[in-house]
Amino acid sequence: MDFLKDYTSKINKALEAIDLPNGPSNLYDPLRYFFKLGGKRIRPVLVLLAAEKFENNAVNDPINAALAVEIFHNFSLVHDDIMDEAPVRRGKKTVHKKWDQNIAILSGDVMLVKAYQYLNSYPHKIAKQLIDLFNKTAIEVCEGQQMDMDFEKISRVTKEDYLKMISLKTSVLLGCALQMGAIVGGGDSKAQNELYAFGLNMGIAFQIQDDLLDLYGDPKLVGKQVGGDIIANKNTLLMVIAKEGANEKQLRTLEKLSIENNIENKIAGIIALFKSLKVQEKCQELMMDFYKKAEYHLDEIDVNNDKSGLWALTKELQKRSY
Amino acid sequence: MDFLKDYTSKINKALEAIDLPNGPSNLYDPLRYFFKLGGKRIRPVLVLLAAEKFENNAVNDPINAALAVEIFHNFSLVHDDIMDEAPVRRGKKTVHKKWDQNIAILSGDVMLVKAYQYLNSYPHKIAKQLIDLFNKTAIEVCEGQQMDMDFEKISRVTKEDYLKMISLKTSVLLGCALQMGAIVGGGDSKAQNELYAFGLNMGIAFQIQDDLLDLYGDPKLVGKQVGGDIIANKNTLLMVIAKEGANEKQLRTLEKLSIENNIENKIAGIIALFKSLKVQEKCQELMMDFYKKAEYHLDEIDVNNDKSGLWALTKELQKRSY
Repeated sequence: MDFLKDYTSKINKALEAIDLPNGPSNLYDPLRYFFKLGGKRIRPVLVLLAAEKFENNAVNDPINAALAVEIFHNFSLVHDDIMDEAPVRRGKKTVHKKWDQNIAILSGDVMLVKAYQYLNSYPHKIAKQLIDLFNKTAIEVCEGQQMDMDFEKISRVTKEDYLKMISLKTSVLLGCALQMGAIVGGGDSKAQNELYAFGLNMGIAFQIQDDLLDLYGDPKLVGKQVGGDIIANKNTLLMVIAKEGANEKQLRTLEKLSIENNIENKIAGIIALFKSLKVQEKCQELMMDFYKKAEYHLDEIDVNNDKSGLWALTKELQKRSY
Repeated sequence: MDFLKDYTSKINKALEAIDLPNGPSNLYDPLRYFFKLGGKRIRPVLVLLAAEKFENNAVNDPINAALAVEIFHNFSLVHDDIMDEAPVRRGKKTVHKKWDQNIAILSGDVMLVKAYQYLNSYPHKIAKQLIDLFNKTAIEVCEGQQMDMDFEKISRVTKEDYLKMISLKTSVLLGCALQMGAIVGGGDSKAQNELYAFGLNMGIAFQIQDDLLDLYGDPKLVGKQVGGDIIANKNTLLMVIAKEGANEKQLRTLEKLSIENNIENKIAGIIALFKSLKVQEKCQELMMDFYKKAEYHLDEIDVNNDKSGLWALTKELQKRSY
């Protein structure tokens, strides 16, 4: 996604330029560390891409809204990493591993507050709209994370609940990022809503794709173990759909495979079962439905200039095989 | 503090009336539980007491600002309890003990966002002012908590650093509560600043009093073990001042007493040493300085009606012996 490079580097520069106090260093060093971990910066880039479609983009620089979204995303990663006991994030130690858990809780809290500082930097009418949307989204992200943790303790999750969970945990923030761009840029409420719906549906499609690529992605490009979700017995959409379609015998086979110690046999067994249940096709169909919905909403937006950035992004995302 | 009863019950009713979603129950049950734990509700009461001094109090109901401050305080307690590994809060299990740590992190996060929802419910000009003040305060509270954690690993803390820590960790929120009341009520910037300064100084005085009462409070009324801070080798203001005034020999005695296993001997030894160093008097003097500063700022406020609520509160606080 080469055309995004300039946007990503703009975000990285703005993150680096954030002037944090020196002390207490145990509070602020984790922020400095985490802001430098990199990543595609997809959420703040969406803010910028959306904002530039509207006339007031030049009046109200979208960069602070973009920073707010990225810092919020970082807050959620720091706290999620504690909850998931994750040792590594983007090839580096997670905050709770590099420092300790208390420092990770507290520096995450400060990140969340800093996100609000950037939102509240806009003229009061815009700030109020941004913060209303952000509050709703932040609460939904917490709800999604809780659902995800709850699902770990349940063997059967419905497709509807699973889609709701990924929608809350990850997709609403993409919708929020795009709508924020529209708010800052001066887009009307129709444009705001269409962009939100575009982001939401694209986010769900993207997440389904993630589940698919775990098992069916190009192993040379995925960069992590193929079938990692299978090995961890994770309730992904593949598994949810498999269980929904399986008969008694197939369910027993799945159960046996979940405690199979030989990883190769486990993955091969699951792939065979998924094939007979057409799991991959069903997931792909669902994913394409959401991508189509996303495109529909993007098509609805009536703006002055072209929509190339957002269109190109959607097309690129659909093609990815890792 | 009987005259506060009506205010406290107003806050409790408003907290009970908060309409939280049913699910995910692991996210919202901790909020319902924590909001019912009670307490003096001193911070939200300060919002109401401050607001009623100004004319626009009736136009902009201060209750949502009061709820925001109380919910923020609850957020900080839920996260602090994890960090301090505290099993009990107000006689009941802490959230991370009753549920688990992940649920405590996440439900704390939701509380913080909910605080912003209440602040953003005001007309946009007021909302922006409230959120600016709140952001600054929330970050300071995190800084204070980090300093407090850092101090646990340091044997010598200066009086200045200690006062800065208690100021950030607890007092700025009292100033913030009062200033918020003034903002909502339509107080001018002088009134806002004086009320903030009143709250800040009263908060520091109150915290010093807490340190004093741990050792010199009425054991019948304190309701917890006398000398708890001493037993835990906590760096309270008493200890900070003692170490500042102690000679080499007295420092060695303090060191020996810190590892004394017989609790009675330990407390008696420390009390004797504190007496020879006039620790109690020095602390009381410092406390009175802050109470006087608080009164000075309260006296500066030029408002339409009387200041009885805030004056009465200050006088009551100074008298407390537990």
